[in-house]
Amino acid sequence: MAVNRMGARALRFRNAPRIAGHAAVVGKKEGEGPLRGTFDYVAEDDHFDQPTWEKAESEMQRRCIELAARKAGREVRELNMILAGDLLNQCIGSAFASSDSNVPFLGLYGACSTMAQGLLLGACLVDGGFADELACAASSHFCSAERQYRFPLAYGGQRTPTAQWTATASGAAVIAAKPERGRVAVTGGAVGQMVDLGVKDANNMGAAMAPAAYRTLSDYFRDTATEPGDYDMVLTGDLAGVGADLLIELFKQDGVDIRPVYSDCGLLLFSPDQDVHAGGSGCGCSACVLCGSILRDLEEGRLRRVLFAGTGAMMSPVSVQQGQNIAGVCHAVVLERQEG
Amino acid sequence: MAVNRMGARALRFRNAPRIAGHAAVVGKKEGEGPLRGTFDYVAEDDHFDQPTWEKAESEMQRRCIELAARKAGREVRELNMILAGDLLNQCIGSAFASSDSNVPFLGLYGACSTMAQGLLLGACLVDGGFADELACAASSHFCSAERQYRFPLAYGGQRTPTAQWTATASGAAVIAAKPERGRVAVTGGAVGQMVDLGVKDANNMGAAMAPAAYRTLSDYFRDTATEPGDYDMVLTGDLAGVGADLLIELFKQDGVDIRPVYSDCGLLLFSPDQDVHAGGSGCGCSACVLCGSILRDLEEGRLRRVLFAGTGAMMSPVSVQQGQNIAGVCHAVVLERQEG
Repeated sequence: MAVNRMGARALRFRNAPRIAGHAAVVGKKEGEGPLRGTFDYVAEDDHFDQPTWEKAESEMQRRCIELAARKAGREVRELNMILAGDLLNQCIGSAFASSDSNVPFLGLYGACSTMAQGLLLGACLVDGGFADELACAASSHFCSAERQYRFPLAYGGQRTPTAQWTATASGAAVIAAKPERGRVAVTGGAVGQMVDLGVKDANNMGAAMAPAAYRTLSDYFRDTATEPGDYDMVLTGDLAGVGADLLIELFKQDGVDIRPVYSDCGLLLFSPDQDVHAGGSGCGCSACVLCGSILRDLEEGRLRRVLFAGTGAMMSPVSVQQGQNIAGVCHAVVLERQEG
Repeated sequence: MAVNRMGARALRFRNAPRIAGHAAVVGKKEGEGPLRGTFDYVAEDDHFDQPTWEKAESEMQRRCIELAARKAGREVRELNMILAGDLLNQCIGSAFASSDSNVPFLGLYGACSTMAQGLLLGACLVDGGFADELACAASSHFCSAERQYRFPLAYGGQRTPTAQWTATASGAAVIAAKPERGRVAVTGGAVGQMVDLGVKDANNMGAAMAPAAYRTLSDYFRDTATEPGDYDMVLTGDLAGVGADLLIELFKQDGVDIRPVYSDCGLLLFSPDQDVHAGGSGCGCSACVLCGSILRDLEEGRLRRVLFAGTGAMMSPVSVQQGQNIAGVCHAVVLERQEG
């Protein structure tokens, strides 16, 4: 079996690539939520000085990668690669964020699991000796997503209670080979399979993603002979209220109580009084929570071992209109503070 | 420097992962072109027994991955991962092709460079010991692309001479760690950067992609101290007529004549009398040419060393409407027949 695999699904990073820098850039509403103070830049009006929402999203992600590189003591052009993705058609948010970077670019599409997918692939590339330092990034923007997926902003459509709020946010992390480049290491993870349990409601993505999170996490626990209590935090991407409850229930059926260590980025980013219904979502949601507060808590010793499980819903407005189910996917990454 | 890097951009695969199986599935028009006889399955009517074009594309890609796995002596469920991408919004072509596979899935977006991007990342994952066997796949469908990017099919819009024809095609390859699994190895490659020279015409993507192909190829030649004549074939993704001429011209300015070894998938797939104007395009174009005739020619000894440079144009209908330039990208992969 391949030397860096454990069991059926788990991957391990024997060289423990480090997080050399990380940044989170968010919109106004996100900056007013419970995680205010953990972001590197909060926009005043979500336009990011751009004439369109799509360009605003690219500019937000570009600034985020630039900040992460700077915090890693690098210029963007010194990076070996950028791995990035977003929710916009043809992933233009990420493409135009890096089109002037002169850095080799790999576009990813994992819906809201993109940050986890990028960290996982980035860690494989660094651990495998294919890059010295690279950046992973993801973004979403409420206004570009809303008009692409749902209604024109000005229409003011009603939202269902199970609906999630697409975060205006970006997160970026620089992964480096050398151990002296950072306190926090990527030590393991797993690429997830799609799980389709027949959910068709695009306003209830938490329900579509929870079974995928359950599958990837339980596979990972089995392959590595660990359990939720072995981690300071098990953090799902953005299942939000509905999906998080389902995940807790799915583990309860196995006799496992994940609640003592369980958090969800979609629940952490906004407070209930911010009117986001089930919670936050979008590639930027888990990206900004991870690259804002979580990596900071790991660096400063408030957390030591985090199992980050980014979740995504594979669908498009066209696939929903054509009656296709929504398939969930979840990629897991283990981040550990290295002592000494 | 990372052990598997050479110079600024080139990657090398020291374990020389093998192509254990490959397949190409195409539509009716593609099956009538110059490469007929090199495909594993030619559709009778491009519907692939599905009620919508989007579902037809997914079914085409699903069959292609299944065929590639079968030719590698595997069931799809035995693969460690599937890496796949396409042109549809939110990459639903690939997502729904593999949503029932029970195989860990990584979604890619590299526009028409996706097959090269998948091979490159797949080779990194196998070479680095993160997978024993995995599949890379890409697809495009004329009918799903046409209505998403351009006009309703029934409208019958005029095409400009520089326009390319989106191929209805899919290609898939299984990459395996063990040398006895195949005659053809992935030995090197390079992740490309985006190159934006200000092209804004979505009906002239060849012009947008040619400078990116030039950049990636010339970087790769420099880093590996090789030249075009060291390869039996230098094969670009789908620059088609306009882009291929530009690439020849760009190398000519360096005093390099690539013509003796140069081919382009967009020119190989269709003949001029098939009314495709500049030539073929779409993720499926280079995927089906590579996974059809080229890998076969490598296996059977008619080619020994091919430098495959998949090219993509980073844009969307929205980005074009908003006046953004079209950025080209090109990822390179070296495929070599192993003797004995």
